[in-house]
Amino acid sequence: MLIHPDRLFPVDASARDVARRLYAGIRNLPIVSPHGHTDPRWYAENEPFPDPAALFVVPDHYIFRMLYSQGVRLEDLGIPTRDGSPVERDPRAIWRRFAAHYHLFRGTPTRAWLDHTFSTLFGFTERLSAANADDYYDRIDAALRTPEFRPRALFERFRIEAIATTESPLDPLMHHETIRRSGWGGRVITAYRPDPVVDPDFEGFRDNLIRFGEITGCDATTWSGYLEAHRKRRAFFRDYGATSTDHGHPTARTADLSRGEAEALFRKVASGDFSAEDAETFRAQMLTEMAAMSVGDGMVMQIHPGSFRNHNRAIFNRFGRDMGADIPTRTDYVQALKPLLDRFGNEPGLTLIVFTLDETSYSRELAPLAGHYPALKLGPAWWFFDAPEGMRRFRELTTETAGFYNTVGFNDDTRAYLSIPARHDVARRVDCAFLANLVTTHRLDEDEAHEVAYDLAYRLAKEAYKL
Amino acid sequence: MLIHPDRLFPVDASARDVARRLYAGIRNLPIVSPHGHTDPRWYAENEPFPDPAALFVVPDHYIFRMLYSQGVRLEDLGIPTRDGSPVERDPRAIWRRFAAHYHLFRGTPTRAWLDHTFSTLFGFTERLSAANADDYYDRIDAALRTPEFRPRALFERFRIEAIATTESPLDPLMHHETIRRSGWGGRVITAYRPDPVVDPDFEGFRDNLIRFGEITGCDATTWSGYLEAHRKRRAFFRDYGATSTDHGHPTARTADLSRGEAEALFRKVASGDFSAEDAETFRAQMLTEMAAMSVGDGMVMQIHPGSFRNHNRAIFNRFGRDMGADIPTRTDYVQALKPLLDRFGNEPGLTLIVFTLDETSYSRELAPLAGHYPALKLGPAWWFFDAPEGMRRFRELTTETAGFYNTVGFNDDTRAYLSIPARHDVARRVDCAFLANLVTTHRLDEDEAHEVAYDLAYRLAKEAYKL
Amino acid sequence: MLIHPDRLFPVDASARDVARRLYAGIRNLPIVSPHGHTDPRWYAENEPFPDPAALFVVPDHYIFRMLYSQGVRLEDLGIPTRDGSPVERDPRAIWRRFAAHYHLFRGTPTRAWLDHTFSTLFGFTERLSAANADDYYDRIDAALRTPEFRPRALFERFRIEAIATTESPLDPLMHHETIRRSGWGGRVITAYRPDPVVDPDFEGFRDNLIRFGEITGCDATTWSGYLEAHRKRRAFFRDYGATSTDHGHPTARTADLSRGEAEALFRKVASGDFSAEDAETFRAQMLTEMAAMSVGDGMVMQIHPGSFRNHNRAIFNRFGRDMGADIPTRTDYVQALKPLLDRFGNEPGLTLIVFTLDETSYSRELAPLAGHYPALKLGPAWWFFDAPEGMRRFRELTTETAGFYNTVGFNDDTRAYLSIPARHDVARRVDCAFLANLVTTHRLDEDEAHEVAYDLAYRLAKEAYKL
Repeated sequence: MLIHPDRLFPVDASARDVARRLYAGIRNLPIVSPHGHTDPRWYAENEPFPDPAALFVVPDHYIFRMLYSQGVRLEDLGIPTRDGSPVERDPRAIWRRFAAHYHLFRGTPTRAWLDHTFSTLFGFTERLSAANADDYYDRIDAALRTPEFRPRALFERFRIEAIATTESPLDPLMHHETIRRSGWGGRVITAYRPDPVVDPDFEGFRDNLIRFGEITGCDATTWSGYLEAHRKRRAFFRDYGATSTDHGHPTARTADLSRGEAEALFRKVASGDFSAEDAETFRAQMLTEMAAMSVGDGMVMQIHPGSFRNHNRAIFNRFGRDMGADIPTRTDYVQALKPLLDRFGNEPGLTLIVFTLDETSYSRELAPLAGHYPALKLGPAWWFFDAPEGMRRFRELTTETAGFYNTVGFNDDTRAYLSIPARHDVARRVDCAFLANLVTTHRLDEDEAHEVAYDLAYRLAKEAYKL
Repeated sequence: MLIHPDRLFPVDASARDVARRLYAGIRNLPIVSPHGHTDPRWYAENEPFPDPAALFVVPDHYIFRMLYSQGVRLEDLGIPTRDGSPVERDPRAIWRRFAAHYHLFRGTPTRAWLDHTFSTLFGFTERLSAANADDYYDRIDAALRTPEFRPRALFERFRIEAIATTESPLDPLMHHETIRRSGWGGRVITAYRPDPVVDPDFEGFRDNLIRFGEITGCDATTWSGYLEAHRKRRAFFRDYGATSTDHGHPTARTADLSRGEAEALFRKVASGDFSAEDAETFRAQMLTEMAAMSVGDGMVMQIHPGSFRNHNRAIFNRFGRDMGADIPTRTDYVQALKPLLDRFGNEPGLTLIVFTLDETSYSRELAPLAGHYPALKLGPAWWFFDAPEGMRRFRELTTETAGFYNTVGFNDDTRAYLSIPARHDVARRVDCAFLANLVTTHRLDEDEAHEVAYDLAYRLAKEAYKL
Repeated sequence: MLIHPDRLFPVDASARDVARRLYAGIRNLPIVSPHGHTDPRWYAENEPFPDPAALFVVPDHYIFRMLYSQGVRLEDLGIPTRDGSPVERDPRAIWRRFAAHYHLFRGTPTRAWLDHTFSTLFGFTERLSAANADDYYDRIDAALRTPEFRPRALFERFRIEAIATTESPLDPLMHHETIRRSGWGGRVITAYRPDPVVDPDFEGFRDNLIRFGEITGCDATTWSGYLEAHRKRRAFFRDYGATSTDHGHPTARTADLSRGEAEALFRKVASGDFSAEDAETFRAQMLTEMAAMSVGDGMVMQIHPGSFRNHNRAIFNRFGRDMGADIPTRTDYVQALKPLLDRFGNEPGLTLIVFTLDETSYSRELAPLAGHYPALKLGPAWWFFDAPEGMRRFRELTTETAGFYNTVGFNDDTRAYLSIPARHDVARRVDCAFLANLVTTHRLDEDEAHEVAYDLAYRLAKEAYKL
């Protein structure tokens, strides 16, 4: 059997029994997925996924970064090059390479997600290996051609109550429009991710500003027109269900400039002639501006700081962004968030969800901040930490100071559609294990643990994200 | 039952049995409380505590910060405003609000302390909730009017062998004088906390210096007179039992300036015309001066760095200091303590106890420093980390490098008088659980574990603080 | 009994059973010791060790730093002074002092290593204490005079397949030459540690450069001659079995200067007239130069950054280097390694093994880097972290992101020859416990765990270090 019914539960029999009972109460709850990167085209067009490699390997940076670290060339995994120079085209060859290296994923969440998917969706009972690679390929490939594996059928099978995708303000939301018109009942909403028009270091920033003005009919060459363009575009996104914004800045810095200073800074970054510090200050100011708009329009704000993007120069030059070479960095929150919190930290109507890739900030900075400021909540363990040990540490490092109710449930944050049930299942199991340990060490009563398990699996995400 | 006899012990039966045996040997040891913030007036006047809200809610920043983070206004909890604008006056209404939000404390030490207190002092058997809030209120309120709940009766009931309060050098120690004259046998001592006359950023620093001179009869406007004032005032504090000093600086920086430099710096900060860096350097220099005095007069020195005080500007403006808005910051010790350690780190007569709010420093900096320098010892897990997981991490992160004997037992550090037995009990249980795990994994023999348990619960605090 | 057959295994019976089975499969594997500091003279001359104190206490900084931290003078432990002023000469007196303080090591790895050694090599069954100090002394002293305790006999008894020592480029490798000529079959190889000719802050740097030129016959006063001297000396070291280089820099900084810049910087540091920043940049550049040479000659490169050496000024002045006063510091890798990784991070032929004394970098920086760059691998838990909790955290913090196969097995890193089997045994047990937990929580199948246990105990070290 590929997956065990007691996986991730405590080893001790009495604690495991508690975990089983807690999990039984929540395992079938619908999935609320308030933050992720699935492609809205899937739900709009409802076409079959092409083949096993294109579904599992080529788009999954967790997978290809590990293979690459052990000497497998990205070209041999079919990762497209920027200059169009040839790469592996045969999906079966890609799949075989992946299968032959499956042992590399021992002890990683990728392994847990894949085994869950292989078992529950395709009925495999034997671990993937070089020996059974073709059998795996053939069975998955055949399944993908059936109606049950179309995106909308999977959406229903996964019991997704609502899922958010993430779009740039420049995106016309065409796929969301198609979904809406289709009459299909699946709730797929967008989220406002303005980095391309907020981050002066973003590729094409100046062109993006021009396009931003065209789309919104605002004069985005002036500070007030630019802000107005955001307001209009946020409203447009809300028409497509958006309840949140998302901000992927290199740091958590915020600023609170005077109107004159902000205006001058905007002119500078819009002109293209600006320093690194100008760019950082502009991003910092824009977080505060976005918070101000959120106070007005009720959109939940998410900050995802601390990733050094495209750390590997050669890989970036040859393959582009998001190629598994983003590396976390040390991140400060106490000083960085103060300007924003000074203005809006006490707003009862604002929800600011903060994520981190620097675990040291949980017990030192983020839990103390979230355990005080009404506006601040903690996002779940993110990215490299979306894994059993990472999630356990998240709870151990935050609960004693911030409790459970200053957190917001789980985000799968994925573009790997088939892994969504597996990811939520891991989160639910790890939380049940954590709660079972509190119950068995007599820190929490079991009736309360059932309530908390429900809250962490379902209610908090729904409420925090207003879904 | 509100509290379970095996709470916080290991889940595994064999390890739990060891923990039970270790705990049985130390559970009834007297409480040595060498560092805390109870009000000496209580012991001096021995008046009843006013009501449940005034006792449990209004003064406890752990409680009201959590409620505030979830949208409860501080005014509605009866927290007094600086400008005297009205706040809730009805203690029962405050209590009900608190009770209705009791679920927020799930998984936090506040919950453990309160349940312990409700159970052992007031005999409650049912968890506090909105439904039983009035019953709780009435029974506690009635108990507080009985002689058994007067401060001195509780002191004896808690089996406190010695407790230290913390006073400013400007404090006349009137309450300590009253205690001394009363003939009561409880050992309540003071501790010298000179921040108001050492930290140029402290509110009223210049006035404090003037007052410091008046009280001591020294010319505190000159560097040598200022130092002499400290020496005299430390002696005065020692007359009231003080064995320690305490220093709450924003960082751990120390300095070792020449006499001329120190003199010039003192003139600058005393004049009121100084930079942030001047203030930091002066605080740094004063830690070294205090160490020099400790070498002379034998007072144990405590450094509590790394808190960004009053982070929430609006809360500070409306309610003042200590309103649950102090946030830990990243703290360096290796460079910061070097000037002081270069002068006094090898002094066998000096005891310098270092605390941290930055757990990352334990295994990287503090355990290696304490495992080498004779003068340096590690204070227990502090503030947000005075909690089961925090204490467990403290032991896991320090023991392998610094051992047990470079630590100093437990500090309750509290102004919540009724929680003192609960806090020491948690510390004793967590240490017994840690030791039981070492025994059960055959890293320590059980006879040794009994000795260590005794040392951690009692002997080390007594010896390190010279009590 | 001093050591228990189940020591360090999980407490839970089912997990312990798995750990026992895993351990049974690897406990008798040969020792591969690719990085350490034993004295090659021992193997060359094969003389008896002098006495218990000289073998166990005087050279072991783990031991004397702990005793010193608790007030024992280094003079009383026989540590030689730089000025030759007298210290304790009586080995039995030193041994008694050590024995009387044996309780200080409770909970530390030193205790585990010593008990293992006392038990398995000398047959002791009773814990060392003041009471049995003389018995211990006499029995150890007698054993050391027997042929079974000569270095080569122990080498074979320890089942060492290969061991690396560490030498300066200025070392003539005389002992290695003696070993080679002796016809003895033990594989003792050297490793190239060029700090004395790479670090401008190293004592005697300029003289070292002159000597470097003489030894190699290169003009080491010019940049190209200096680099050529390295190439020649690396080849010479390879003749004596070296497969690796080792670099003990204060930080992980690397640089990638133009040839002209590098040449100018070399002239500056070689002249003796340089700034702290020049020295840092030169060390940074030399890491990249060493990587370039490794790409050419295949030597594995190790970086051991982050130690503040000789933190205690008085101890350094009186006793010199390596006296237990080296303290870890916060260490950045993401920015620091980028210049080197930009040039060589994608080289499939290069192996760059990175160590850290800053555990916070594992999950945030090092595991993400090693899980991506083909050239980068993670060294095992090092120095203060070469201990059960440190090793457990290493696996917990790195496995989910980097897997097992971007790590390189165990390094004992020791000059304490007799502790080598104990250290490898601890590492094997802790890894088996970690794997048993994965198996028992159904994250890994047991057949895979056996394979991983073998890899971590033996194969990965052999392969990563090309042994």
